Amino acid sequence: MSLLKKTIDGITPVDVSLFSKAQAHLNNLTKPLSSLGRLEEFARRYVAITGNLQPVLRKKTIFTFAGDHGVADEGVSAFPKEVTAQMVLNFLRGGAGINVLARHSGAEVVVVDIGVAHDFGDAPGLAHRKVVRGTANIRKGPAMTRDEAVRCLETGITLAKEYATEGAIFGTGEMGIANTTPSAAIITALTGSSPVDMTGRGTGIDDNALANKITVIEDAIRVNRPDIKDPVDVLAKLGGAEIGGIAGLILGAASSRIPVVVDGFISTAGAVIASELAPCVKDYIFASHLSVEKGHTAMLNRLEARPFLDLDLRLGEGTGAAMGIWLVEAGVKIYNEMATFSDAGVSEKNA
Amino acid sequence: MSLLKKTIDGITPVDVSLFSKAQAHLNNLTKPLSSLGRLEEFARRYVAITGNLQPVLRKKTIFTFAGDHGVADEGVSAFPKEVTAQMVLNFLRGGAGINVLARHSGAEVVVVDIGVAHDFGDAPGLAHRKVVRGTANIRKGPAMTRDEAVRCLETGITLAKEYATEGAIFGTGEMGIANTTPSAAIITALTGSSPVDMTGRGTGIDDNALANKITVIEDAIRVNRPDIKDPVDVLAKLGGAEIGGIAGLILGAASSRIPVVVDGFISTAGAVIASELAPCVKDYIFASHLSVEKGHTAMLNRLEARPFLDLDLRLGEGTGAAMGIWLVEAGVKIYNEMATFSDAGVSEKNA
Repeated sequence: MSLLKKTIDGITPVDVSLFSKAQAHLNNLTKPLSSLGRLEEFARRYVAITGNLQPVLRKKTIFTFAGDHGVADEGVSAFPKEVTAQMVLNFLRGGAGINVLARHSGAEVVVVDIGVAHDFGDAPGLAHRKVVRGTANIRKGPAMTRDEAVRCLETGITLAKEYATEGAIFGTGEMGIANTTPSAAIITALTGSSPVDMTGRGTGIDDNALANKITVIEDAIRVNRPDIKDPVDVLAKLGGAEIGGIAGLILGAASSRIPVVVDGFISTAGAVIASELAPCVKDYIFASHLSVEKGHTAMLNRLEARPFLDLDLRLGEGTGAAMGIWLVEAGVKIYNEMATFSDAGVSEKNA
Repeated sequence: MSLLKKTIDGITPVDVSLFSKAQAHLNNLTKPLSSLGRLEEFARRYVAITGNLQPVLRKKTIFTFAGDHGVADEGVSAFPKEVTAQMVLNFLRGGAGINVLARHSGAEVVVVDIGVAHDFGDAPGLAHRKVVRGTANIRKGPAMTRDEAVRCLETGITLAKEYATEGAIFGTGEMGIANTTPSAAIITALTGSSPVDMTGRGTGIDDNALANKITVIEDAIRVNRPDIKDPVDVLAKLGGAEIGGIAGLILGAASSRIPVVVDGFISTAGAVIASELAPCVKDYIFASHLSVEKGHTAMLNRLEARPFLDLDLRLGEGTGAAMGIWLVEAGVKIYNEMATFSDAGVSEKNA
């Protein structure tokens, strides 16, 4: 059995009986019932995901997957495609947004070359997992072969297994010039929506470039005819290596009962692919923020996820996930560190 | 000249020319223009507030003001009034929600007895600044004398001055059983709204208690006839000691060019009093979160503030401010720590 199949088969729903057990503990803490709102939800879900009523959160890791996209040749991005490789080097030197925010939240960043069209040599600190040297142009044919798509998924799964440890929590991130185009194409195809409603300005394109981007996405779906019942086909034909890596990471995390905090538009496209392959992964996902990018709400609806940060972000890299991980940790600390009414000698609610 | 008058006179609008200077620096960082959304806004505002294009954020302090309320006798809260003092002791022992979240965000908590109806002796760690031993019942007459209200404001101002240092950022918080009632009364009076639209369930009261709470607020406004052109009169007649302390802290912070992150419903009532006294304080305020409490949006509108966390919180103490301070700090770190395009050798946007 393939690693992908075995991983999917190993994903089970969380034990919902733990929600009420966790809430019973939260209700003993010195605060009005449920007054910490979503922080309490994070704690309940963390307990149910990890299966531990004494939850441990010890190691925060953001995986930033990088890949190039043939469709960049269609003028869908405001930036030249060499920026993907340049930003990977920036990540390794610690100068990018994700580095700053991951340091701020106490998370490690693992930078993964899963599909950059550049030879990094032995660049220290880089996770060398190249599956493709950039994808092909989806306007003209499939981004990848089916085999390559599976290898991207399995690369993510393998990383999740390598970093799986007690108290681990993962965040997703990505870098890839033009990668809002495959992401919008995926959600357009899966939902049968108009690409007009799913396509945004990415790094900041003007009206003409936006109109062109929409046409490119229409063409990509028409040319490739993805089978929406077959998520691997959708990923291979419309996707990108980093989207596959993120989907795989989420599958691997869920199979190891590790919570995953998902970043913005492109990361959520990966999460959607994962949830099409294994619907139960939704139980393991925390959607960190609502992106400015237009199709993000449709993706989040498909995941039945409600984001908790609204900061008008549209950078990616894992920046929203870095802050999101810190907020999930806040919920776990509330659960673990607050005094109970009886310990603190505080009177409870009037009968 | 009184400390209050002198402080109000010393508050000036921020230098708006610094917004564009700060944004020019942000635009050189390795990310698409404005792609970090509100984090960039936080950085711009922090620069303008402190007047420093090399912003320093070194010392985070949450001030949790505690006070009791005579109106608790009207059955407006789900908890007995002795909980105010019990929670103060819980704060001092580090077991409350604010302690957990302040530790998580690297902030110090200063617990201030400004109006608790309890003798704490020399309780170590407590800032002993008692102005009143609980307020009087606003359903029957004014909460405080005008002189007491001024002393509450000046207590907050004095604390702000004591903790003013380069790189300081403040957060506001409070504890006081029944204090959503004076807060709702203040915003009802100032906006001329119906108390039905401004009154929520506080710590979790049922429908009957909510109907009673609304009647109590109607009575308080009718009996006291506050002069809404005179914010000190509104504070004295409808307010509470901790609301006055928070208003004073904000005035003192603004006069010292220190940013203040405001917590939820009660803290925002304090911020509204401060902004009625000195409209420029709005420039110095970051509204951290949108409370579940019903009248909060009306208060935020009056401050022209847009909150950035939506976590269904309704605890108070400064819990939302603790997380909000960490997010403002994230914006400052982005400004200070990210590489520029030229430093990182990253290509800029296509022409």
